[in-house]
Amino acid sequence: MKAEIITIGDEILIGQIIDTNSAWIAEQFNLNGIEIFQITSVHDDVDHIAEAMQKAEENVDLVLLTGGLGPTKDDITKIALCRYFNTRLVFHEPTFNLIRERFRNRNIDLNKLNRDQALMPEACQVLHNKVGTAPGMWFEKNDTIFISLPGVPFEMMYLVEHEILPRLQKNEKTKAIFHKTIQTQGLPESMLAERIENWESSLPDNIKLAYLPNPMSVRLRLSAIGVSLDELRQQIALEIERLKQLIPEHIFGYDNETLAEVTGRLLLEKEQKLSVAESCTGGYISHLLTLIAGSSAFYKGGITAYSNELKENLLNVSPAILKEHGAVSEPVVRQMAEGVRKALGTGYSVATSGIAGPGGGTDEKPIGTVWIAVSGPQKTIAEKYIFGDNRERNIIRSSQTALQMLRRMLLEDNK
Amino acid sequence: MKAEIITIGDEILIGQIIDTNSAWIAEQFNLNGIEIFQITSVHDDVDHIAEAMQKAEENVDLVLLTGGLGPTKDDITKIALCRYFNTRLVFHEPTFNLIRERFRNRNIDLNKLNRDQALMPEACQVLHNKVGTAPGMWFEKNDTIFISLPGVPFEMMYLVEHEILPRLQKNEKTKAIFHKTIQTQGLPESMLAERIENWESSLPDNIKLAYLPNPMSVRLRLSAIGVSLDELRQQIALEIERLKQLIPEHIFGYDNETLAEVTGRLLLEKEQKLSVAESCTGGYISHLLTLIAGSSAFYKGGITAYSNELKENLLNVSPAILKEHGAVSEPVVRQMAEGVRKALGTGYSVATSGIAGPGGGTDEKPIGTVWIAVSGPQKTIAEKYIFGDNRERNIIRSSQTALQMLRRMLLEDNK
Repeated sequence: MKAEIITIGDEILIGQIIDTNSAWIAEQFNLNGIEIFQITSVHDDVDHIAEAMQKAEENVDLVLLTGGLGPTKDDITKIALCRYFNTRLVFHEPTFNLIRERFRNRNIDLNKLNRDQALMPEACQVLHNKVGTAPGMWFEKNDTIFISLPGVPFEMMYLVEHEILPRLQKNEKTKAIFHKTIQTQGLPESMLAERIENWESSLPDNIKLAYLPNPMSVRLRLSAIGVSLDELRQQIALEIERLKQLIPEHIFGYDNETLAEVTGRLLLEKEQKLSVAESCTGGYISHLLTLIAGSSAFYKGGITAYSNELKENLLNVSPAILKEHGAVSEPVVRQMAEGVRKALGTGYSVATSGIAGPGGGTDEKPIGTVWIAVSGPQKTIAEKYIFGDNRERNIIRSSQTALQMLRRMLLEDNK
Repeated sequence: MKAEIITIGDEILIGQIIDTNSAWIAEQFNLNGIEIFQITSVHDDVDHIAEAMQKAEENVDLVLLTGGLGPTKDDITKIALCRYFNTRLVFHEPTFNLIRERFRNRNIDLNKLNRDQALMPEACQVLHNKVGTAPGMWFEKNDTIFISLPGVPFEMMYLVEHEILPRLQKNEKTKAIFHKTIQTQGLPESMLAERIENWESSLPDNIKLAYLPNPMSVRLRLSAIGVSLDELRQQIALEIERLKQLIPEHIFGYDNETLAEVTGRLLLEKEQKLSVAESCTGGYISHLLTLIAGSSAFYKGGITAYSNELKENLLNVSPAILKEHGAVSEPVVRQMAEGVRKALGTGYSVATSGIAGPGGGTDEKPIGTVWIAVSGPQKTIAEKYIFGDNRERNIIRSSQTALQMLRRMLLEDNK
């Protein structure tokens, strides 16, 4: 089954609100085997709404409209629906009773605007809204279903969950779809694509691959369409196993897991604690870790040493080595990692020192040069990276790379 | 001028990502006098893209496409554009040189996919992307402008700000518009609205006010429309002076200034340095400070003490006081601020200790309880706040509140 979402309301088109409804509906529909063909946002305008509906009807089996069902003047979706389905508004007693009850419970008098919310198009099946005053509507025209829902997110969600999905799941056209997202770190999108090119072209026809890069990671999403959800799940699991052979060290997790969460879990499993010594990342690694609820179980704390003086005093970096090699160097970042591990008394530690930019680069150490060290019970390792010229992204990438190096050491130490 | 935004990419239609790009573009365009007629999200599909472009061309003067310009197989926007404009891809040397330079700086070899990013439709004007590898494209057909931009938000934003808006502002259809954003901290939106109600209703007809709340601050945007930019500028300056009388202590800056930047500037003026001791904010204050280029001139470093042991050992908090009052208490947060100021040798310091949630609350100290202290050469102050139940937002609000307390102390110490 194919669907289009039409969102109605000026507030989206002037950029006042972000359209989170469509993303939520799209996700729910996809999880239920309904593919979204298009999302269209239009003004509170009868002609514009009708035109969008007409166009959608040509392409899909199901048109879901949201918004424009409130009691005020600018809410004109019902008028547009009546015109489109050549029907009229009639008083709908069950809806009126529900509205009256809601107001009575809240000790508020009904006014005319509220009473008008019980006027419903004669041609529709009314979907009762138990969490608000604007009901949903279900129309059928030739082979197409049209559904109109309020734009208030929790009312829309209530109706999708309790009225729409149960009805659609019974529809014969509904296919099974299964998605799985693979989180990778350490390969830019183009290099990753090259490494997995053959795997990608050998994917079965019913599986689609999408690259979803962001500064934190490059995500790969596999989407399989078919008849049986169990079969799709198995099919995807098999493809992921093949992918793992190609980039074993770059896959850190699945779906919405963060690298900090995965790393934290490994620390918990080993009953070890972590400390961090940050220079160029300036507290961001610590922030990523402490965003996780309960992170105090594996994270003890960190030192942001944004001056050489603090590197010496708090992290015990040798002044002579600082002078000889500079703060952005292998020996300094190693001493930082070892220094913080000792000072804070943890099993593992990470340290960063680099030139985040936009200033401070030299020929020898250009902007984006970052040294990262990880120290554990068995050894300390250090690696040099050269990222880009954007300060914020350098901070993010350095932090994620440090966590990735730590994750690998934790996995190796398990062996 | 009327525009349509077409976003290209399966990830929006399966609900994996929320389309924040369109809201941002809609806002920027509206601020520049360009009305958005419709937003349409379509699949990575050549026919579907062409159909959406065709439909848009009938309705608007400007069609802005985003997405589908990456180096991988699923990115097919360029193919769709070539077909639509009946043109072909040709090797574009300036683009290739930019891409090569980006890779050279990062010591990564170019592969074929990267080289293919320099193939551009012959009929377009190339918009150089200095922050990524996919350039923007500008086409004109009859009376309609078509612009294609990458979907990566910061690349799209760079091109809109540096290439698109300057070109569109020269367009004869554009009116004089002047915007000024006032950054406030410390009053929730509803309380702020109450405080400035009379001022708001007395604004001249050509000035509009918008409330733009986010977890970092509540911004007030004034937009004046008229003929002369100089007059609008003066008009807005006058209104801001009146506003300042009403909420003098809550306005910390203008436009895109961050509270960390404003505070950093005050420290620089006093030739003072800052240190931080973070518990519940977990490194986020340090991150906000070090996001600023050149922050080492006023920020020396910080300690994230995510365990009582570190509060004692590194910050010299008294074990007896920790035991008696608990970590989330006035005496502890005062000792943390004074401890870090001494240990790191700075003129000023801030400290936080709180219950970020979602667990850890008690009747006496519910989730969201946060103690914040600021210590300076003249005194140490501490305040208690009760924020909400969302961990991430509690971290952000605690951090901003700490910076705001520091800013006020810096201003007072000037007197």
